[in-house]
Amino acid sequence: MADLPTDHIAQQLAFLVELDKLKSVMRQSPLINQNRKENSAEHSWHLSMFALTLSAHAKDQVDTLHVVKLLLVHDIVEIDAGDHPLHSASEQHAVIAQAEQEAAARIFGLLPEPQGREMLELWHEFEAAQTPEAIFAKTLDRLQPLLINTLSNGGTWAENGVTQQQIMERYGPVIARGSPTLWEVASKRVNAFFAKAKSN
Amino acid sequence: MADLPTDHIAQQLAFLVELDKLKSVMRQSPLINQNRKENSAEHSWHLSMFALTLSAHAKDQVDTLHVVKLLLVHDIVEIDAGDHPLHSASEQHAVIAQAEQEAAARIFGLLPEPQGREMLELWHEFEAAQTPEAIFAKTLDRLQPLLINTLSNGGTWAENGVTQQQIMERYGPVIARGSPTLWEVASKRVNAFFAKAKSN
Repeated sequence: MADLPTDHIAQQLAFLVELDKLKSVMRQSPLINQNRKENSAEHSWHLSMFALTLSAHAKDQVDTLHVVKLLLVHDIVEIDAGDHPLHSASEQHAVIAQAEQEAAARIFGLLPEPQGREMLELWHEFEAAQTPEAIFAKTLDRLQPLLINTLSNGGTWAENGVTQQQIMERYGPVIARGSPTLWEVASKRVNAFFAKAKSN
Repeated sequence: MADLPTDHIAQQLAFLVELDKLKSVMRQSPLINQNRKENSAEHSWHLSMFALTLSAHAKDQVDTLHVVKLLLVHDIVEIDAGDHPLHSASEQHAVIAQAEQEAAARIFGLLPEPQGREMLELWHEFEAAQTPEAIFAKTLDRLQPLLINTLSNGGTWAENGVTQQQIMERYGPVIARGSPTLWEVASKRVNAFFAKAKSN
């Protein structure tokens, strides 16, 4: 009797209730109005809108709605593992990766099968960044904080003393891999931001 | 020269920057942990996850990813028009509808064509609630706050003195129209919530 629809629904609602916690996971990036930091749930919505809006600029043709699915689930593991900023120490990366694997197993494991496995596979696809959709999702996940930082007095760059050169190295390869066109526009914005900062 | 990709990208980024404001539009519903109210951006993400998770329970077969698109854009007009709670006075509805139409024209008008028109049509489709996808999107938009309220000491029901009978009338038709199965489960949760509240 375990496969009755109402049993499935109870598991699915438990998963959706658990997801509410992503609204309390705070990222390093500010809102553009600088009133507070961004949380990972609203960040995931914003990125999904980036996908709907910008997918024509992907280097390889992508299934836009598959990009959206990847972005909707990409940060869910942070409910357990927390958000780890781009500008953090590299020696922590293996520990974080292990915590995220365990988080994925627990949270997607709340769902009935095969749905839990399907969502887990979406997250693995995003992390592996090998399909055109995952490569482009990573592009957007790097483009959005770049855009926010240029519009909020440097945001996380200012807080962490990140140089123009470091930005080019940390954002450029990931953004350009999925969209040389978007990196061309984004790198110009970075350069304009630093040119303006120097002139002030 | 107006159709060069970089011109389009500038318009698209202006739209995406504008969307950041949805993170500051506060809804009446609390987070389940009751630390604060929910904002419309994270609400839109949560609803998109409801769609990915629950669409097999739609009364009519739906294109899940089209439901997601409708839910991603459904609250964007609130950047200008604000969030208007379900339990507000009905005489305000025409004024709100007019403000939302103007908001949609302004915000989706930031995009290049035909993209702006396509997003506007998604919003109109959601509002009209005639396609299977829009009907089910409305079901989820009503189910999510119901679920939150049952888990947060009554949430907006407690704040507004909403009765069990009023909940059945205000949520039932919309949820059941898109999914009798989900309404069966949801109405049981409402009844259990009030039975427990009375016994306390």
